[in-house]
Amino acid sequence: MTGSGTDRTRPSIAGQAPIVILVEPQLAENIGMCARAMANFGLTELRLVAPRDGWPSGGGLKKGATAAASGATHILDNARLFPDAAAAIADLNHVLATTARERGQMKRVFTPAEAMPGLSERIATGERVGILFGRERIGLTNEEISFADAILTFPVNPAFASLNLAQAVLLCGYEWLKTNGGEPGFRENNPSPPASRATVLSMFDYLEGELDRCGFFPPGKKPIMTANLRDILHRLDMTEQEARTLRGVFKSLAEGPRAGREPKA
Amino acid sequence: MTGSGTDRTRPSIAGQAPIVILVEPQLAENIGMCARAMANFGLTELRLVAPRDGWPSGGGLKKGATAAASGATHILDNARLFPDAAAAIADLNHVLATTARERGQMKRVFTPAEAMPGLSERIATGERVGILFGRERIGLTNEEISFADAILTFPVNPAFASLNLAQAVLLCGYEWLKTNGGEPGFRENNPSPPASRATVLSMFDYLEGELDRCGFFPPGKKPIMTANLRDILHRLDMTEQEARTLRGVFKSLAEGPRAGREPKA
Repeated sequence: MTGSGTDRTRPSIAGQAPIVILVEPQLAENIGMCARAMANFGLTELRLVAPRDGWPSGGGLKKGATAAASGATHILDNARLFPDAAAAIADLNHVLATTARERGQMKRVFTPAEAMPGLSERIATGERVGILFGRERIGLTNEEISFADAILTFPVNPAFASLNLAQAVLLCGYEWLKTNGGEPGFRENNPSPPASRATVLSMFDYLEGELDRCGFFPPGKKPIMTANLRDILHRLDMTEQEARTLRGVFKSLAEGPRAGREPKA
Repeated sequence: MTGSGTDRTRPSIAGQAPIVILVEPQLAENIGMCARAMANFGLTELRLVAPRDGWPSGGGLKKGATAAASGATHILDNARLFPDAAAAIADLNHVLATTARERGQMKRVFTPAEAMPGLSERIATGERVGILFGRERIGLTNEEISFADAILTFPVNPAFASLNLAQAVLLCGYEWLKTNGGEPGFRENNPSPPASRATVLSMFDYLEGELDRCGFFPPGKKPIMTANLRDILHRLDMTEQEARTLRGVFKSLAEGPRAGREPKA
């Protein structure tokens, strides 16, 4: 469960992955944020189709993108430039086109979660796979979508369906990594084993004895109150260390201030 | 499969959902992008803990956030301000804290996909649930994390694990909506039923007859070439309309230019 020490980057993550193709992106910041989102989930290859302000000769565009990429500069540095979508996908074997709205084309429609297992299989058998993302405001043209094998769309709130470009890339990367063994960087880190019943029962005995001594239980109520108290404490599903800590807490309360251990004024 | 006409916003989406709590966010743009990401996936309630530049009296901050929210202004307008994280969660029943790195706390650790079914159950039974997101650079303090019932973290590329604030919110919203019946806005829209075998066989008959007439089949090769051709065409898994269209294509090619239908020069 800890995950530490295991290799969380399976070869398929570091190696081949879907290629992200941005068609006529306008804002440098969006290109940079796409690169960051790709890096977050192990996508590595970025293609740019005719970015509005040029690349990299535009200078300003690449600089702005680099600032937004938050360190994913290797992806920007290796980005390849193409004049149109057809050229950008010419060497690929399988292409998905993203769109938020129906285009009247009779293609299969997948969500990222539905598409990624199939893309993984294709990539594992050596196919080169790309995902087309359209312009910030108007998306892909119908002709560009017609180049694709299938459509990728996102399960969003229909009342507010407009996804930011980088966030569409992010969801593809996220589902890609989930499909390929992505795990969080850490898991619950509890070095103590679950408490033994003996430790728990000994804690109960101590607590109930001290409560008896303090006059906590009204006449005749001890059995039901003890049962309730045990229910509460059992629900903690304590570790051995937690049971010992809690026993120490009860003991400290029962014994009260001790010489040399009184709190400072 | 089309989804059209069905109510894609289940009551739990429009109604109660996890509350997003941003602790000391610095950049107005990030607050706005969080609001947009929330709206994309049906989260509605935003709480801000001591945003660096004030809210809304800061003026500038709220204006910048509104620009980045791309229309999700209802979320910003209803955002509530709190002086600290403890105050922001005081009325909640269950709280998750997001963090990208292990904090040495013995809490359960969930990914968004793992956490959302449980949060849904809690919300369905009337609990109020919140998710704490930390400062852009340094995240939540250990004390703020100690307020939470469990930790939420993201399965990312360990070599590039730093998620943008809005993208962390986005992934929570995305998994929330997936858990609560989120569907893409459209599905494959093919009004024609699958082709009947009769239509397909009739198309084969026509094609093979014309190819015979054209001398397409070398001597003795017709059976194997016919079988290969049928394999290719069967793989199309055609609709009735597609089979008719393809037959029309073959017919047009076989008949060649017709009077009055010749292409313009």
